Amino acid sequence: MTETDCIFCKIIAGELPSTKIYENDTTLAFMDIGPIAKGHVLVVPKKHREMITDTEPEILAGIMTVTKMVSQAQIDGMNADGVNITQANGAVAGQVVPHLHFHVIPRFKDDGVDFNWQAQNYSDNEEMIEFAEKIKKEFRQNDLKR
Amino acid sequence: MTETDCIFCKIIAGELPSTKIYENDTTLAFMDIGPIAKGHVLVVPKKHREMITDTEPEILAGIMTVTKMVSQAQIDGMNADGVNITQANGAVAGQVVPHLHFHVIPRFKDDGVDFNWQAQNYSDNEEMIEFAEKIKKEFRQNDLKR
Repeated sequence: MTETDCIFCKIIAGELPSTKIYENDTTLAFMDIGPIAKGHVLVVPKKHREMITDTEPEILAGIMTVTKMVSQAQIDGMNADGVNITQANGAVAGQVVPHLHFHVIPRFKDDGVDFNWQAQNYSDNEEMIEFAEKIKKEFRQNDLKR
Repeated sequence: MTETDCIFCKIIAGELPSTKIYENDTTLAFMDIGPIAKGHVLVVPKKHREMITDTEPEILAGIMTVTKMVSQAQIDGMNADGVNITQANGAVAGQVVPHLHFHVIPRFKDDGVDFNWQAQNYSDNEEMIEFAEKIKKEFRQNDLKR
C-alpha cells in the first residue's frame, strides 16, 4: 500500500471523516469506529510510518505524550478503571491499517473485554537465555548504529 | 504495594534475578519468564512508576526508544514476522505487576497467539461523538496543565 492509498493519511489530510480528540503538529488522536470498548481512541503520527521500527524516536515520544493524555482523559472523563495500550506491527501481529497506530482502550470492571493472555513457559532457564542471546546480539549491533 | 515490595524494582536493583537484554540510565529491558511467545521482552523504567498516566514524558520517550530497538532485534535476530506492543494500566486492564511495563512480543506466522480482538459498533455516530466529547472535555483541561 502506498501512502496515497492509506486511510489514516486520508483522515489526517481531512479527505476522510473522523471524530478527532486532539491534534498537534506531529500527532493525531481520533475515535476508533470499531471499538474494543466504547471510547477507544487511536493515536497516530501525521507522517506516514508503518511500524514502530520505521518511526523516529521524536515521533514516538510525541505519540506517547498524547497517548498518556488520552489515557488520563478516559479515566477522568469516562470514569475508566484502567486503560490498555496496544500496537501491532505487521499483518501477522493483527495490524490491519499499515500506518502506525497506538490503541488506547478504556477498561471497566466486568466490561467483558478479554485479551486471552496465554502465558507459556520456557522448557528451562537455558532455553530462555538462548532466546535472549538471539535478541541481544542484534540489539548490540543496532545500538552501535544509533 | 510500596516501592520496596515491587518485584520489578528488586530486579532493577539486582535483588532478584532476571535475564537482561539491555539497560541504560533510565530504562531496563529483560525477558518475561511467562512469555506469550518465546522471546517476549519487558521494557520498564528504572524509577518506580505504576501507570502511563504517572510517568514523565521523557521517561516514556526513553522506553519507546528501547521498545523500538527490541522490536527490531526480535525481527532481525529471531526472524519474527511482526511484533505486538502492549501495556496495561490497572488490575482491570490485566496489570499484574504495578510497575509500568511495555510488553514486546515477537510474532510468527501460525504462532497460535490470538488476542481475541472483538470490535464492537457504536449504535450510531451520535453515540461515538458523545464518548468523544467526554474524553475531549478532560483532554482540553489536561492540556492546559502542561
